[in-house]
Amino acid sequence: MKLEEFKDPSELKTYSKKQLEDLAEDIRHFLIEKLSVTGGHLGPNLGVVELTLALHHLFDSPKDKFIWDVGHQAYVHKILTGRADQFDQLRQYKGLCGFPKRDESEHDVWETGHSSTSLSAAMGMATARDIKGTDEQVVAVIGDGALTGGMALEALNHIGHEQTNLIVILNDNEMSIAPNVGALHNVLGRLRTAGKYHKAKEELEQLIKKIPALGGKIASTAERVKDSLKYLLVSGIFFEELGFTYLGPVDGHDLDDLAENLKYAKKTNGPVLIHVLTKKGKGYEPAEKDEEGTWHGLGPYKIESGEVVKKPGPPSYSGVFAETLKKIAREDKRIVALTAAMPGGTKLDQFAKEFPDRMFDVGIAEQHATTMAGGLATQGMKPVFAVYSTFLQRGYDQIVHDICRQKLNVVFAIDRAGLVGADGETHQGVFDIAYLRHLPNMKIVMPKDENELQHMIYTACKYDDGPIAVRYPRGNGYGIKMDDELKQLPIGKWETLKEGTDACILTFGTMIPVAEEAIKQLEKQGISIKFVNANSAKPLDEELLHQIAKMRVPVLTLEEVAVQAGFGSAVLEFFHDHGYHHVEVKRMGIPDEFIEHGSVSELLEEIGLTSANVLDQVMTMLPQKRQRA
Amino acid sequence: MKLEEFKDPSELKTYSKKQLEDLAEDIRHFLIEKLSVTGGHLGPNLGVVELTLALHHLFDSPKDKFIWDVGHQAYVHKILTGRADQFDQLRQYKGLCGFPKRDESEHDVWETGHSSTSLSAAMGMATARDIKGTDEQVVAVIGDGALTGGMALEALNHIGHEQTNLIVILNDNEMSIAPNVGALHNVLGRLRTAGKYHKAKEELEQLIKKIPALGGKIASTAERVKDSLKYLLVSGIFFEELGFTYLGPVDGHDLDDLAENLKYAKKTNGPVLIHVLTKKGKGYEPAEKDEEGTWHGLGPYKIESGEVVKKPGPPSYSGVFAETLKKIAREDKRIVALTAAMPGGTKLDQFAKEFPDRMFDVGIAEQHATTMAGGLATQGMKPVFAVYSTFLQRGYDQIVHDICRQKLNVVFAIDRAGLVGADGETHQGVFDIAYLRHLPNMKIVMPKDENELQHMIYTACKYDDGPIAVRYPRGNGYGIKMDDELKQLPIGKWETLKEGTDACILTFGTMIPVAEEAIKQLEKQGISIKFVNANSAKPLDEELLHQIAKMRVPVLTLEEVAVQAGFGSAVLEFFHDHGYHHVEVKRMGIPDEFIEHGSVSELLEEIGLTSANVLDQVMTMLPQKRQRA
Repeated sequence: MKLEEFKDPSELKTYSKKQLEDLAEDIRHFLIEKLSVTGGHLGPNLGVVELTLALHHLFDSPKDKFIWDVGHQAYVHKILTGRADQFDQLRQYKGLCGFPKRDESEHDVWETGHSSTSLSAAMGMATARDIKGTDEQVVAVIGDGALTGGMALEALNHIGHEQTNLIVILNDNEMSIAPNVGALHNVLGRLRTAGKYHKAKEELEQLIKKIPALGGKIASTAERVKDSLKYLLVSGIFFEELGFTYLGPVDGHDLDDLAENLKYAKKTNGPVLIHVLTKKGKGYEPAEKDEEGTWHGLGPYKIESGEVVKKPGPPSYSGVFAETLKKIAREDKRIVALTAAMPGGTKLDQFAKEFPDRMFDVGIAEQHATTMAGGLATQGMKPVFAVYSTFLQRGYDQIVHDICRQKLNVVFAIDRAGLVGADGETHQGVFDIAYLRHLPNMKIVMPKDENELQHMIYTACKYDDGPIAVRYPRGNGYGIKMDDELKQLPIGKWETLKEGTDACILTFGTMIPVAEEAIKQLEKQGISIKFVNANSAKPLDEELLHQIAKMRVPVLTLEEVAVQAGFGSAVLEFFHDHGYHHVEVKRMGIPDEFIEHGSVSELLEEIGLTSANVLDQVMTMLPQKRQRA
Repeated sequence: MKLEEFKDPSELKTYSKKQLEDLAEDIRHFLIEKLSVTGGHLGPNLGVVELTLALHHLFDSPKDKFIWDVGHQAYVHKILTGRADQFDQLRQYKGLCGFPKRDESEHDVWETGHSSTSLSAAMGMATARDIKGTDEQVVAVIGDGALTGGMALEALNHIGHEQTNLIVILNDNEMSIAPNVGALHNVLGRLRTAGKYHKAKEELEQLIKKIPALGGKIASTAERVKDSLKYLLVSGIFFEELGFTYLGPVDGHDLDDLAENLKYAKKTNGPVLIHVLTKKGKGYEPAEKDEEGTWHGLGPYKIESGEVVKKPGPPSYSGVFAETLKKIAREDKRIVALTAAMPGGTKLDQFAKEFPDRMFDVGIAEQHATTMAGGLATQGMKPVFAVYSTFLQRGYDQIVHDICRQKLNVVFAIDRAGLVGADGETHQGVFDIAYLRHLPNMKIVMPKDENELQHMIYTACKYDDGPIAVRYPRGNGYGIKMDDELKQLPIGKWETLKEGTDACILTFGTMIPVAEEAIKQLEKQGISIKFVNANSAKPLDEELLHQIAKMRVPVLTLEEVAVQAGFGSAVLEFFHDHGYHHVEVKRMGIPDEFIEHGSVSELLEEIGLTSANVLDQVMTMLPQKRQRA
C-alpha cells in the first residue's frame, strides 16, 4: 500500500512485526525524499518512526490521546493519520503545518510549537477523563531537552502527587546523553524493566542500614557526573521519587521492546514514564552523523550526498548581532551572553568560541535566564540575553517583576521579531511590543538594517539606565555596507528619512522598504510624504511627534507586529495625551488573529501589509488628493 | 542594647551564643508586639529568627549576598540591618516595605515578592563574582513551597550543571513535610552531615552490584510516599543528584547546628544546599498552633489571646466568586476549579469542601495550571483558574500559546486586579489588561460590584467561544443586594448608567464610584455627563462607541490599571480605526511607573485617580463650560 493511501491508523492493529518494519522503511524513504525538497525537521522524525508506529499499533487514536511535545516530531503521526499526500506542501502557505494542528485531523488533540507543555496538557486530559469516568489512555511524548523547562517539572511534580493515570514517553536522543552513567544505572535499569524494582528497593534499604558511617573526604566535584539532570533521567530515580513508575531504558528502534513496555504501561495504575532511547536521523547517514545539529530542522538538501542546499546571501541579523557582541566584549569585560538552548539559532555559539567563560546556555529555561541576567546586572555585569521574540513570552513575569521593577541593566536581544514564516503561528514574533511597552523602565528599539543593528547592540551595551530590548527579524540583512566603527545612537531619537508635507509615515524595521515603495508611487502622484524611521517604540521621539502634530497632516503608522496595543497605539496615546486629538492616525500592523505558516511575503500579502495598501491608506486619508490623482 | 539602636550586623560577629540567644528572644518579642498593631507576616519571620542571626553572625553582609525568596521572611534581616525603628510604619504608605528593598539598605541586594526567583538571582550574582574573580559568598534562602515553581527547578538544574559556588538554604517548615520518610532518609542524613556521603555512596554502589534480580511484583501505588517531592527534599537525593552537596536536615532553631553547617558550606566547593527545618510562628503559641495558615500574614491581633482583630464588612469579592462557582458547579458537571497554591486567598478552599474531586491545587505553578486548564477544556470540561492578577503574569506564554491560540474555553478568574495595598509594587494587579487585550480570542470583563461579579462568573462559565477573563479587585464588595437568580450577561455590551450631553465618561470596576462622585459635582455646575459602566475591555461595545463618537463630545476613560496599552488605549484605537479621529479622548489610569505599598486610597490619591481629578480633566476638555462655571 502506498503511504498516500493510508487513511486510518487502526489498520495498523492487525499488522505483523514484519509489516510494521516494512512500513517503517517506507516512511523513512518517504521522509528523506519529501523533505529534501520542502525542508523540515528530518532528524527528529527519523528518530521516532518505530515509536510512532508502536503507539498507533497498540493504542486507539483518536479515542486515546497522543500529545507531542514541541510537535516537530509529529510527521510520522501525520503520515499514519491520512496526511501523507500533503507532504509536498509541508510548512508552506496553506499547506500542511509542521506541528500538530487540530484543524487538520481528529488525531491531533493538542497543538504545540513551544516546548514543555505536553505534560500539563496530558494532565488536563487525564483529569477530565477521571472526572467523566471514561477510560481512554493519555500519552505525552517529550524530549529530554524539553524536560529542563520549568513548566514540565511543575507538571511532573503535580502528576506524581495526584497519581494520575497517564503515560509519559521520554524520547531521549541517545547521542545527547552520556552513554555510561555507572553501575547504579545499569543495575536498576535491568531490574526495572523486569518489573522488580520495588522489591529491589526494599532490599536496598536493608543493605544501606548495614553501612557503617565510614570515614573519608568529600570527593572532588570534578569527579561528579557533569550533567546531573541527564544522569537522573537515565537512572530513573528522579521519576520514581516523583511518584512515576519508571520503565526503561527502552530501545526506541526495537518494535518488540517498545511493545512490551507500552503494554505494561497501559495496565499499570498511576503515572508511568517510559524512557525510550532513540537516534536522531536514524536510517539516513548524513543525519545520523550530524554533530552540529544541522539535520534537526533544515531547508532542502541533496539526498545522495547529504549536501544542504544553501542560498548565498548577506549575513543574517543573528550573525551580525553575534559578531558585534564579540567586538564589544573584547573591550568591555562586563559583557555576559545568555541563551536558553538556542546557541546555534542566536549565533551565540560563535561568541562562546571566543568567550567560553562569558556565555551561558541555561537550557530551555527563559524564566531562569531572565532572572539570572538580573542577578548578573546587580553586580555590575552587562548581561545580554539573546532570545527569540516568541520564546521570551515565557519570561514575561521575570521581565516585569525582576528586571523592570528593579530597573536592572539587562539587554534583551530579541531575535526572530516579526513574522518568521514556515514555523507558523506558534513561532511568530508579533507580540513583543505589546507585552513590553506597558512595562515601566523598559526601552524598545529596532533597526532598519544590519548596519543600524550593530550600532543598536553597541548602544544597548553602553546604556546604563535600566533594561533595553533590541528587536530584529529572522533572516538575512540587505548586504549593505557596514560601518567600521561602532557608535552610540541616541535612544528615542527617530531618523527622518525624507521630508514631506502632505502626510507622514512612521514605521520601522522590515516595513521600511514596504513604505518606501509606496512613497515612490505617491510621489509620482504629486503627494509629498514625511517618512520616519521610528526606530524606538519606547521611548517615542516626543520632540519629533510634537513637530508632526503641528504639521496637521494625516499620520500612518506601519508595523510588522500586533497592531493592538502596539507602536501605532503608542503614537495615538501620545497625540491624545498632548492635546493633538485633531491628528488623523491610521494604524497598519498584524491584525487581532494568529498568523499561520507560509513565506513571510505570502503572509504579509494575506494580512495586507503591502506597499499597495500603504498607498491606498494614505490616499484614503487625503481625499482631495485622491480626486486629483 | 535596644533593637532600634542596632545599625550594623557586623556587631554580631563577636556575639557569644548566649548573646545571640538573648537577641533572638528580644527579636521575637519585638515582632509579636509590633505586628500586633501593623499586621504583617508574623509566622514566617518567627520561624527564621535563629537562621537570620546565624547568617549575619557568620557571613559579611553586604559583601556577602543574602537573597530572600518571596521576601516576606526578611523582617529579622531588616531589624539586624538598622531598620527596627521603622517597624511602626511597616507596610504602610511611605513606610518600611514588607519585602526586601534595595533603596532601604545596602544589605538588601535583591528585591522579591513573587516566589521562586532567588536561585536564578543567586546564580547571576555568583557567576558575576566568578567572572570578576572576587570572593564574596552568595546565599539564597528559599521555602519548600517556592521550590515547586518551575523557575526554581530550572535554576537548580543549571546551577548543578555549572557547579557554581553558592549556598542554597532550604527553609523547610517542619509542619508541612512528613516527619518520617523511612530508613533511607535517616541513614543518609546522618552520613551527609558528617561529610561522609560520597564515600558511602561508593560503598552503596558496590553493594548494589551484589543484589540479584529478585522476583516480586510492583508494589501498590497506594503504598508510595504520597507527596513525593517532599520525600525527595528530605532525603536529599534530589539535590545530590542535581549536583548539590546536601547538608541536613538541620534544626533551624539550634544556633550550634546552624553554625556548624553554615561553616561547612562556606568552605565547600560547588553548590551546597542546607536543609533547615524551622517552625512557623516559633515562640508565639497562637502562631505555632496555627492550622489554617492564619498567622502566615495577617492584620492586627491581640497579643494575650491571639485573637485576630476582624473588621466586620460585606463579603469579599473572592468569597462571592467562590460561592457563585459552587452554585454553578452543582448544576454544571463540567466545572473544574484550579489554584496555584492559593486555595485560601482565592476562597477555592470553600469550593473544595463541596467538590473535592473537582478542585486542584497544583502548587506554585501558574504555567502548569494554565496549560492543564487547556487540556481539561479540550475534553469538554469547563476549567476555572482562580489566580491573582500579578501571579498570572507567570502564565503569559501559556495563555498566548496554549489557550488563546487554540481558542480553548478556559475561564480566568483574576483576583486582586488593580491596586492591592500593603503588599506593594510586586503585587499590584495593574498589568493584566495590557498583557491580555492584544491576544487574539481573549475576552476581558470586569464587574462594578459583587452582584455583577456573580453574573459575570456565571456568564463566563456558560461562554463557549474561547477563553474569558473575569477580573475583580482585592477586598470587600459594597454589601449591596445580591440577585437570587444568576443570569447571563451579554459580553461586550456596556451599561449606560446615566445619559448626558456634554461629555462622556467610560470606566469600570472600582473607578465607578470615583467617577460618580465627580459627576455629582459636575452636574451641580450644570454639566451633563453620559456615564458608562464599560464592563468589558475586550470586546469593546462597538455599537455604543459609534453612538458616542457621533455625539461629538469629549470622552474621558478612567481605569485602575496601567494606562499604557490599557482600556483607554483600546477606545482610542477604536475611534481612529473607524474614522472618528475628531473625538477628544483623555485617558486616566495607572501611570508608567511601579506603585509602592500603602493603602489603596492613599495610592489612588498619589497617582491622581480621584474624583477631583476626574472633575478637573472633564473641565479641561470643556473650556467654555469652565469659563461659565
